[in-house]
Amino acid sequence: MSEKNTDLYKLNLPSDLKKLSLKQCDKLCGDIRRLLITTVSKNGGHLASNLGTVELTMALHRVFDSPADKIVWDVGHQAYTHKILTGRLKDFNTLRQEGGISGFCRPDESEHDAFISGHSSTSISVALGIASAMKLNGDSHHAIAVMGDGAFTGGMIYEGLNNAGKSDTNIIVILNYNEMSISKNVGGMAKYLSTMRTKESYKKTKTVVQRMLDVTPLVGKPIKNAVRESKNAFKGAILHSTMFEELGFEYIGPLNGHNLEELEAGLKAAKAINKPVFVHVNTVKGKGYAPAEENPGEYHGVGSFEISTGNPDVVLADSFSSVMGKELCRLGRKNKKLCAVTAAMKYGTGLQYFAKSFPERFFDVGIAEEHAVTFCGGLASMGYTPVFAVYSTFLQRSYDQLIHDLAISRIHAVLCVDRAGVVGSDGETHQGLFDIAFLTSVPSAVIFSPSNYEELKLCLHRAAETEKGIAAVRYPRGADKSVYSKADANTDYIHKKNGGKILIVTYGRLYNNVYSAIEILKNHDIICDTLKLVKVFPIENKIIQIINKYDSVFFFEESYKYGSISEKYSAVCKNINSYTIDKFVTHGECDDLLDELGFSSEKIARTVGENIKNET
Amino acid sequence: MSEKNTDLYKLNLPSDLKKLSLKQCDKLCGDIRRLLITTVSKNGGHLASNLGTVELTMALHRVFDSPADKIVWDVGHQAYTHKILTGRLKDFNTLRQEGGISGFCRPDESEHDAFISGHSSTSISVALGIASAMKLNGDSHHAIAVMGDGAFTGGMIYEGLNNAGKSDTNIIVILNYNEMSISKNVGGMAKYLSTMRTKESYKKTKTVVQRMLDVTPLVGKPIKNAVRESKNAFKGAILHSTMFEELGFEYIGPLNGHNLEELEAGLKAAKAINKPVFVHVNTVKGKGYAPAEENPGEYHGVGSFEISTGNPDVVLADSFSSVMGKELCRLGRKNKKLCAVTAAMKYGTGLQYFAKSFPERFFDVGIAEEHAVTFCGGLASMGYTPVFAVYSTFLQRSYDQLIHDLAISRIHAVLCVDRAGVVGSDGETHQGLFDIAFLTSVPSAVIFSPSNYEELKLCLHRAAETEKGIAAVRYPRGADKSVYSKADANTDYIHKKNGGKILIVTYGRLYNNVYSAIEILKNHDIICDTLKLVKVFPIENKIIQIINKYDSVFFFEESYKYGSISEKYSAVCKNINSYTIDKFVTHGECDDLLDELGFSSEKIARTVGENIKNET
Repeated sequence: MSEKNTDLYKLNLPSDLKKLSLKQCDKLCGDIRRLLITTVSKNGGHLASNLGTVELTMALHRVFDSPADKIVWDVGHQAYTHKILTGRLKDFNTLRQEGGISGFCRPDESEHDAFISGHSSTSISVALGIASAMKLNGDSHHAIAVMGDGAFTGGMIYEGLNNAGKSDTNIIVILNYNEMSISKNVGGMAKYLSTMRTKESYKKTKTVVQRMLDVTPLVGKPIKNAVRESKNAFKGAILHSTMFEELGFEYIGPLNGHNLEELEAGLKAAKAINKPVFVHVNTVKGKGYAPAEENPGEYHGVGSFEISTGNPDVVLADSFSSVMGKELCRLGRKNKKLCAVTAAMKYGTGLQYFAKSFPERFFDVGIAEEHAVTFCGGLASMGYTPVFAVYSTFLQRSYDQLIHDLAISRIHAVLCVDRAGVVGSDGETHQGLFDIAFLTSVPSAVIFSPSNYEELKLCLHRAAETEKGIAAVRYPRGADKSVYSKADANTDYIHKKNGGKILIVTYGRLYNNVYSAIEILKNHDIICDTLKLVKVFPIENKIIQIINKYDSVFFFEESYKYGSISEKYSAVCKNINSYTIDKFVTHGECDDLLDELGFSSEKIARTVGENIKNET
Repeated sequence: MSEKNTDLYKLNLPSDLKKLSLKQCDKLCGDIRRLLITTVSKNGGHLASNLGTVELTMALHRVFDSPADKIVWDVGHQAYTHKILTGRLKDFNTLRQEGGISGFCRPDESEHDAFISGHSSTSISVALGIASAMKLNGDSHHAIAVMGDGAFTGGMIYEGLNNAGKSDTNIIVILNYNEMSISKNVGGMAKYLSTMRTKESYKKTKTVVQRMLDVTPLVGKPIKNAVRESKNAFKGAILHSTMFEELGFEYIGPLNGHNLEELEAGLKAAKAINKPVFVHVNTVKGKGYAPAEENPGEYHGVGSFEISTGNPDVVLADSFSSVMGKELCRLGRKNKKLCAVTAAMKYGTGLQYFAKSFPERFFDVGIAEEHAVTFCGGLASMGYTPVFAVYSTFLQRSYDQLIHDLAISRIHAVLCVDRAGVVGSDGETHQGLFDIAFLTSVPSAVIFSPSNYEELKLCLHRAAETEKGIAAVRYPRGADKSVYSKADANTDYIHKKNGGKILIVTYGRLYNNVYSAIEILKNHDIICDTLKLVKVFPIENKIIQIINKYDSVFFFEESYKYGSISEKYSAVCKNINSYTIDKFVTHGECDDLLDELGFSSEKIARTVGENIKNET
């Protein structure tokens, strides 16, 4: 194609990519980088990881035929270039905005998104399912799982590798190694991969070693004997010296992930081998944007920022996460048995303060939520008090471990459940809608849902120092925006009597909206009392008694309907109107989403007002 | 100690073991084997795995000091010898019986049981928690995780290895390799381990290779150069040639797991190294009892059997599992898109029929429930209908995958949830109490709970052929004991009107007890109608309408209280008395446990009778 045809907006994507020269594609990669930086600087999103995968994505779409070949992006936060190259270029400016395109992969957005993504470490399992189906269909296309080294700490990756390696399918596993997951990567695997990264090209090494084996017969007798003696073991050790070969894969790599020619050669080789292939690609996170290359951690997920200076709109203000983190630090100073655990979310959960003050009592286990909970069990069995700070949506991974490894033995462990409720622009895969439902089904778990910083601190103390068993403290993403007085903050409940016969019950951040709704209703001469729960579970008789005193009770709850707290109170109280969430919630601004769900102060006031009118 | 002091019953265990000679210990191992065979032949239990670990357990207790050193048994079904050697010899005849000792490890049973066990692949996480606590305490004792190769297919093992390998702790990971997990072991890791098993002693090989490296300077120039060129890679390949060394462990093995001397030497070496150690032990499952050695699969978990013939009391009669398996086979004949998936429970779930008829559409993924569900998602995305047959308690592992990888995309997948409800002698860790709670919190999941074989077949058809999204069919362990007519079997509900003003609602196996309770109540002139739910979730208006017609409704449900179906109906109906399960349930005979929980026909009749009396 001629030079003028390398205008992204004029190409028929992805098919035209195959008609271009490498040079033309390099030019396109530059254009895409600029588009990524511009868009993310405005909309926020994942930057560093996307800058790292531009060439890899280009090479994938030139070597393979999506959607007949299926590309499965692990987590999906590195698939922006894939979106740009598969029909979503014109909408790319709506990235992560309500009604716009998602920051993750969604099959309902494009046939090129082979599967939903959002949570880590699922890609090999998905791709193996697809590859197995292809095999049953007699279809010779490929299923390609692409993941970063962060995802590589999750147990599902290993379960997937274990099954994929021995499968007789066209699965290709691509490890995009950039020495940098969300926080600094941890564990033996990271160290191993890092060694491989710094090696001379493995392929080359292997050839050298093979040559050496070939010539050994020339050397003296003792060595000849030694070689013969251990021939198989020796060969095995040298020729199958990557872990991935040991699990049954052909290994290709490491490839320079920013060299299109090398990438395409490697991927073509992978395509030609009719068995499971593991492709190891080295990339630089943040490639092509100096501030992001220098600080890939800061540019993992960002808000908007100024391109020329690279200054992200850093939120210097406190958030529920940072307040938790600082308070835990204070607690840790007094209580030498307190330990903090994170699954690769040190900064996200605010644990950096604790980590810095008490490095020996801080444990970053990688993206391994199952291990994290059971590891907490081990610590607790020795008299320590583990605090696992984790996003609500990721704690879903630990459900069995909470029951089996903590609850049965009534082990005391604190869960700091961050990002509980609606999280906003990360969308469906990341909303914290289910923690109430699954934690209430873990016998003897206690759940606190503070609605402001004061209560968060009090709840944290109580959870760590007073409670037994599993004590969960859940709180939303972002900052405390409460407008009411916090003088009466406590860890139990607050019952505000205004002389009304109507009661509005809620907990967590929604209390702020209820507080404002009460004012709106008052202006319409509707007087409501409020009951804010702080300890939301188990349900309690004193709460039932309060509820039963009212003619009409409205319970607003930012949680999934089935398994909700209002459902539990409704089962024993006969006067509750429940308003919960009964569907997955897509991406958008938090306040907009809460309004749509009927949880803005205006909507709460309207719901109560209309219902009262209907009754009278 | 003198020969007469090798009477198990006269020794002070475990401390006296260290005073004995190897020969005396070998004699004890024989005694223990006989005791294992005798006890399991009477009480049922896990035989083959326990016969395989007699010497290993003996060696552990001679080399280490339990409970100061902590031994964590993965799954725990191989810890019978450990129980015998740590104060539970006299009670060993009560194994798995109600009020007797558990078939798994329980810290409340003995201080030598470092942590609860039952579910697979948790031991490294637990042991690392303990080892980290020891390190914080400045305690130089060891935390020792012992697992079979079956557990080695679970992702938690890898998450644990990844963290343990780089930890600066005294953790020892012991792999008891017997080439035989519950079903035949699967996957790349199994193949890899199998290769290592058949190797000459790895230690020896390593020495040979090391010697060879040492002498290379003597050889000619080309080789010298080749060696220099690739020195690091080469060394790395040879000296760190086990996967476990690559993850940061010192590797010892493979050791002969039935040679006490070799085992003790290996464990002493492991104890002397002050860093993470991986010990590879080869054992023979069923060792010392010919029928079990020949058929370790059949002797994994057994009922009682006759020792002389080795004939297990094979249950030839049908069970819910076998009926499901056979019907799925029929379905698979018609529907070529139907696939069956198991997580190492081919026989337990009745999938052997399908596996035999349609091997290409049958997938045993190993003990990897997370992968299993997401793999189903991949299959379904290509137009296949995956059926994952799994025990209720193990499906807890897949909660996040059900939400994230299936529900968000409204993927059609069938879950055959076996062992739902009380399972009996396996106890607390294995009861299927939570599937209703967690499945109802997965948006758009549909749940069927057939109470007999006819309904099971109908539900399976409907789930596979008519339903969209996640369709779960849950059924209890064991056989259909129903005494009522099944002529009206369907997949919806059965409302039996006897002219009563009292309604008893239930579902699943409990209907049989309710049916009998109705007769008892009739004899006391209490006439009750019954409502048996088959499709139990989502809750439906037509069911609400039926319930609302009655003055008094009793809902009996073999499920955990919070998240139960009766809770959901209670939240919208105002006349329900719920009877659910509000605690963990220990081991015992199913019927006894159901009676204790208030679910025998007598107890149901009494509950209704007394309640009615109180009301009048």
